[in-house]
Amino acid sequence: MSGSTFGKLFAVTNFGESHGPAIGCVIDGCPPGMELSESDIQPDLDRRRPGTSRHVTQRQEADRVEILSGVYEGRTTGTPICLLIRNTDQRSKDYSEIAQTFRPGHADYTYLQKYGLRDPRGGGRASARLTAPMVAAGAVAKKWLAQKYGTVFRGCMQQLGDIAIPFESWDHVPNNPFFAPVADVSHLEAYMDGLRKSGDSVGARIRAMATNVPAGLGEPLFDRLDADIAYAMMGINAVKGVEIGAGFASVTQRGTTHGDSPTPEGFRTNNAGGVLGGISSGQDLEVSIAIKPTSSIISPRESVDIQGNPVEVVTKGRHDPCVGIRAAPIAEAMLALVVMDHALRQRAQNGDVVPPMKAIPGSIR
Amino acid sequence: MSGSTFGKLFAVTNFGESHGPAIGCVIDGCPPGMELSESDIQPDLDRRRPGTSRHVTQRQEADRVEILSGVYEGRTTGTPICLLIRNTDQRSKDYSEIAQTFRPGHADYTYLQKYGLRDPRGGGRASARLTAPMVAAGAVAKKWLAQKYGTVFRGCMQQLGDIAIPFESWDHVPNNPFFAPVADVSHLEAYMDGLRKSGDSVGARIRAMATNVPAGLGEPLFDRLDADIAYAMMGINAVKGVEIGAGFASVTQRGTTHGDSPTPEGFRTNNAGGVLGGISSGQDLEVSIAIKPTSSIISPRESVDIQGNPVEVVTKGRHDPCVGIRAAPIAEAMLALVVMDHALRQRAQNGDVVPPMKAIPGSIR
Amino acid sequence: MSGSTFGKLFAVTNFGESHGPAIGCVIDGCPPGMELSESDIQPDLDRRRPGTSRHVTQRQEADRVEILSGVYEGRTTGTPICLLIRNTDQRSKDYSEIAQTFRPGHADYTYLQKYGLRDPRGGGRASARLTAPMVAAGAVAKKWLAQKYGTVFRGCMQQLGDIAIPFESWDHVPNNPFFAPVADVSHLEAYMDGLRKSGDSVGARIRAMATNVPAGLGEPLFDRLDADIAYAMMGINAVKGVEIGAGFASVTQRGTTHGDSPTPEGFRTNNAGGVLGGISSGQDLEVSIAIKPTSSIISPRESVDIQGNPVEVVTKGRHDPCVGIRAAPIAEAMLALVVMDHALRQRAQNGDVVPPMKAIPGSIR
Amino acid sequence: MSGSTFGKLFAVTNFGESHGPAIGCVIDGCPPGMELSESDIQPDLDRRRPGTSRHVTQRQEADRVEILSGVYEGRTTGTPICLLIRNTDQRSKDYSEIAQTFRPGHADYTYLQKYGLRDPRGGGRASARLTAPMVAAGAVAKKWLAQKYGTVFRGCMQQLGDIAIPFESWDHVPNNPFFAPVADVSHLEAYMDGLRKSGDSVGARIRAMATNVPAGLGEPLFDRLDADIAYAMMGINAVKGVEIGAGFASVTQRGTTHGDSPTPEGFRTNNAGGVLGGISSGQDLEVSIAIKPTSSIISPRESVDIQGNPVEVVTKGRHDPCVGIRAAPIAEAMLALVVMDHALRQRAQNGDVVPPMKAIPGSIR
Repeated sequence: MSGSTFGKLFAVTNFGESHGPAIGCVIDGCPPGMELSESDIQPDLDRRRPGTSRHVTQRQEADRVEILSGVYEGRTTGTPICLLIRNTDQRSKDYSEIAQTFRPGHADYTYLQKYGLRDPRGGGRASARLTAPMVAAGAVAKKWLAQKYGTVFRGCMQQLGDIAIPFESWDHVPNNPFFAPVADVSHLEAYMDGLRKSGDSVGARIRAMATNVPAGLGEPLFDRLDADIAYAMMGINAVKGVEIGAGFASVTQRGTTHGDSPTPEGFRTNNAGGVLGGISSGQDLEVSIAIKPTSSIISPRESVDIQGNPVEVVTKGRHDPCVGIRAAPIAEAMLALVVMDHALRQRAQNGDVVPPMKAIPGSIR
Repeated sequence: MSGSTFGKLFAVTNFGESHGPAIGCVIDGCPPGMELSESDIQPDLDRRRPGTSRHVTQRQEADRVEILSGVYEGRTTGTPICLLIRNTDQRSKDYSEIAQTFRPGHADYTYLQKYGLRDPRGGGRASARLTAPMVAAGAVAKKWLAQKYGTVFRGCMQQLGDIAIPFESWDHVPNNPFFAPVADVSHLEAYMDGLRKSGDSVGARIRAMATNVPAGLGEPLFDRLDADIAYAMMGINAVKGVEIGAGFASVTQRGTTHGDSPTPEGFRTNNAGGVLGGISSGQDLEVSIAIKPTSSIISPRESVDIQGNPVEVVTKGRHDPCVGIRAAPIAEAMLALVVMDHALRQRAQNGDVVPPMKAIPGSIR
Repeated sequence: MSGSTFGKLFAVTNFGESHGPAIGCVIDGCPPGMELSESDIQPDLDRRRPGTSRHVTQRQEADRVEILSGVYEGRTTGTPICLLIRNTDQRSKDYSEIAQTFRPGHADYTYLQKYGLRDPRGGGRASARLTAPMVAAGAVAKKWLAQKYGTVFRGCMQQLGDIAIPFESWDHVPNNPFFAPVADVSHLEAYMDGLRKSGDSVGARIRAMATNVPAGLGEPLFDRLDADIAYAMMGINAVKGVEIGAGFASVTQRGTTHGDSPTPEGFRTNNAGGVLGGISSGQDLEVSIAIKPTSSIISPRESVDIQGNPVEVVTKGRHDPCVGIRAAPIAEAMLALVVMDHALRQRAQNGDVVPPMKAIPGSIR
Repeated sequence: MSGSTFGKLFAVTNFGESHGPAIGCVIDGCPPGMELSESDIQPDLDRRRPGTSRHVTQRQEADRVEILSGVYEGRTTGTPICLLIRNTDQRSKDYSEIAQTFRPGHADYTYLQKYGLRDPRGGGRASARLTAPMVAAGAVAKKWLAQKYGTVFRGCMQQLGDIAIPFESWDHVPNNPFFAPVADVSHLEAYMDGLRKSGDSVGARIRAMATNVPAGLGEPLFDRLDADIAYAMMGINAVKGVEIGAGFASVTQRGTTHGDSPTPEGFRTNNAGGVLGGISSGQDLEVSIAIKPTSSIISPRESVDIQGNPVEVVTKGRHDPCVGIRAAPIAEAMLALVVMDHALRQRAQNGDVVPPMKAIPGSIR
């Protein structure tokens, strides 16, 4: 309840700081009997981990996950799964300066207001490094959902700063460091090279989606599937906006256009993004998020120090010039965790339900 | 945990259906000793209630609230406050047709998939009528926060379908049926008159904000203040998108622009929307939401019936042609409930904290 | 989370005070499709209600329950069920004296310490009257569990003050005002008549049990079935002790005696009371609770007033001389609520589990 | 919510199995700024750890705790504190036999019913070894409560099998392996030597208490302080009964005797055990628990195997002949965790309350 546990029934408790000895999580509520080993989790961690291209932070972390509990003879036991990732590349730099001033746009100021002290090393708890355990937990959820319902989660970049990225194919996503669904990313590389040179950072727009999501997940009023997705996405570092389906475009749509007509061949459109009245329809879940530019940049900026005096802040160190670049696997994982939790909640209350109607083609249950 | 309780410490449990005998909520965790009577709550309910102009549903509901518990001799006792609102204008129309077909864009289909049955009268639990108890609960939160911190919550319309509405002044908001912050709303009236005539519906964009929010509210990882706001807003009927501060505009911003510089005179800008690292900074909370067009419209649309046969759906009855019109007080209330919950959480954990720095001018703690 | 909601998935939120306009509860998470009407709930309320014999409080309350939501055409819809019970016999007596002094053994003092004010009318929120909504909610749980698993809940009195009551048969329990499992209760009636005359009160020991409880309910570490039962029972007004199975007798037992041997014909004994390692075994749940003597008595006692001055306290008004007399249906209901919650939790996580072994005869799954 | 997290605001998530690589916990919600190092935690772990006398299991575990997060420069940061304890003495014995049969009185059977599989090594998750992380977390709670309110927690043995142990002094407790409050424990040693020789086990009764507990902690209806204590205690392995204050003795008490009279010099008695109406009175919390005899014993017993065939079960290996012997520090820790959680909850809701009356002498607030 104190903000470090995600999920009601598939509950993931996250711990750690950027430069502490370790980060990790405890997954409570995983169904038993599923084959699970580190090799199920490592690939998603590798997709997210830093240092894999010149466009992201150069911090070198293997992000090796260790399963400390909850698995016996290669199968989940139904008891808590503790996943541990040791931090290895914490530079012993001097943080005394960063501890005395506030980076514009950073949590430095608010952590101090809240707690009266903070761990300034690499952002401490506010670091996006803490998404790694969520990616690990998401991999567990993904595996279970894939086996149970054939659910598949995907993420990609839709926009990098000023550059909109058209959707060509999911096949391209793993082949470039941007998670861009296009064959040619040379313009993105040039853009990032220029950005790094300028000492500035930029935002991004990321898409996450899920196919083969059973209909019926979500609650009517609060804990709606879309509300929980919004909560999960806005909980990712640097996210400032969340859309489901048509999102803000629905403001100018008419009811005759927006409503996705069910037909004997399937739904005509997916403006709903897979959620109606807070409950999944069986259509693909479609989510889009806005990620703000990194606040730790080398360009000098106006700020104040702890005494309230005006200062110029310059942030050195290793930082992503666009945190959105590594965000696709994070968004996928958070989406998977939401779906997983609701899949368990759904069968808790409605395990006996037999819907009285024919399912719309293309949707599962 | 089953989706009808909102909040962790200031917990509001909502009940009722659109055409059942009553709707209401139970507020658990309200601090004791606050003067409270129905007259503190009724004004906000009156702002939200239907039938107050020709641009909204013509259903006539007084939305009279009755306090059933938790108040003794005019003061809150710290025990649960039950607020009851009797439904009075449930037309005894025939719902057999609506029960057999699915409105495109409506929760008809997903409720049946989830529960195997549904209350079709006026949308049952899926009706936006269920926001009334939240507005009532929000009024209680608003009063406490106003007394404790001077916090003020406001909401207005930013866009009605194709028409962007510039911000002139909060003073105009109570003077027109659209919650529009402009003096002249004749073009909005004409727009809505045309829309009603066309038998169609349209979306809207709503802004909610709070001033005098103490710094330090929110949690670092999950249960962030912005994440909980996103959850609350996406939980309002028909919402498809949520932005905090610069929102999706932050995608194209540079770090040098986006970061709000603290200065001895205050923050230079508010791209953050009052939240940094999930924790309030003391700046105004700024939220913007996208509301989709109403799915219950008289225009005929393609759909299927329960047997999966193609049908044409026409929805008669009393419906808002733009549910966004009455959404401003709802968004305010949800925002107030989030802030209230976090205000209590903050003093639970950090009641002894004395921040080591000078506060940025313009922010409170 | 603020203490008025019971259960995680079958969550009952209780509201009201002894002399307020109404008491009631909201049940969230009830499975849909179950036939439910007031007549399913009223019988258990009638078993608990006051004024039915000379041995209990003479307050006359019909305890008529009204279903305000969550039921459509006679079936649960899966949405919150609000149950309302209007208070009718609140005597307009003067509570100014009771408000100025502290009854020894009563919550008067602690409520004031906690909240700074309290509703002194009939004990306010501290009244055992607030168990009525739990009995109502328990009736809903009982019905679902009976239909699903054939589970049956029973309660009876084991001891009344100094008088131990041997177990003869469950058949006797409904036939006397004490819920005593004996044919002849004349000695209990004489005992109570003498007690009332003396102006004193006395404690009692109550047994609650459940048969046909599926094996596998409960969690290993916290939220154990026995821990949740202990929580539920200790939450009943005036309870000071809880035992599962052999309870305190297990202190002097040897391991060779205590362990209930499974055999091809069933378990030999039930010292475990149906719970092993926090998880139900399929044996009967056996619970025993200690109820303290009523603290509102007419006999004068030493105390202090609000100013800290010594006073003699005499409590007039209508009170049960032994609150244990009406406790059996309450204990049953609380036990049913615990089992219900865990039945839903169990299928959430373990809905796919097929145990690899033969079930011990006499237990169900 | 899945049963491995304890507490609402001071939330402890436990993970691990008896013979897995590690056990531990994550404490979320600890107030920031408190000095904390392993040396604050290790002493309580040392009191609980195995292998320290011939009367307990001979498993050798150093139970060295490592703080992985949540502490910076020797102070808590307010973010999650992960405590890790590596298992070191897991014997590589053959568990195939224990995996095929059910020990009477053990969780073997119920784990298989629940999960379909189980980790049989040393009892897996059902092992009392999992109380070690709770003792560690309890040490953190104790330190904060001691600094804030001067609260002190103590535990001792009241009865060992047939032998009642009179209370002489808390000073004796640390001086003998039984946590017995007596100077001479030679009779207890002889008793245990005989028991071990007999191959049997025995139960115990343990007392836990707290002094300097602020008045006002606990909730009126559920989440009562006594209910949460009962939940916590019944959650300790092998506990079958819980009493608060007079406990089961209150069954035969009269109201004139049971009610603890407040006087200008303090309360006359403490039959309430420090809790009235679910809320702390400021008197000492007094708790007593019954611990059943160990189910893993060398004496042969009747049982069945997985195929349902009758077998004779003999449990070799290293086991405590009386698990109650090491239970005192566990009970203390669980009590401290409950008080800690409620201390935070209390100031969340009632941080502004000023009680209108004079405090009873001897109680704090």
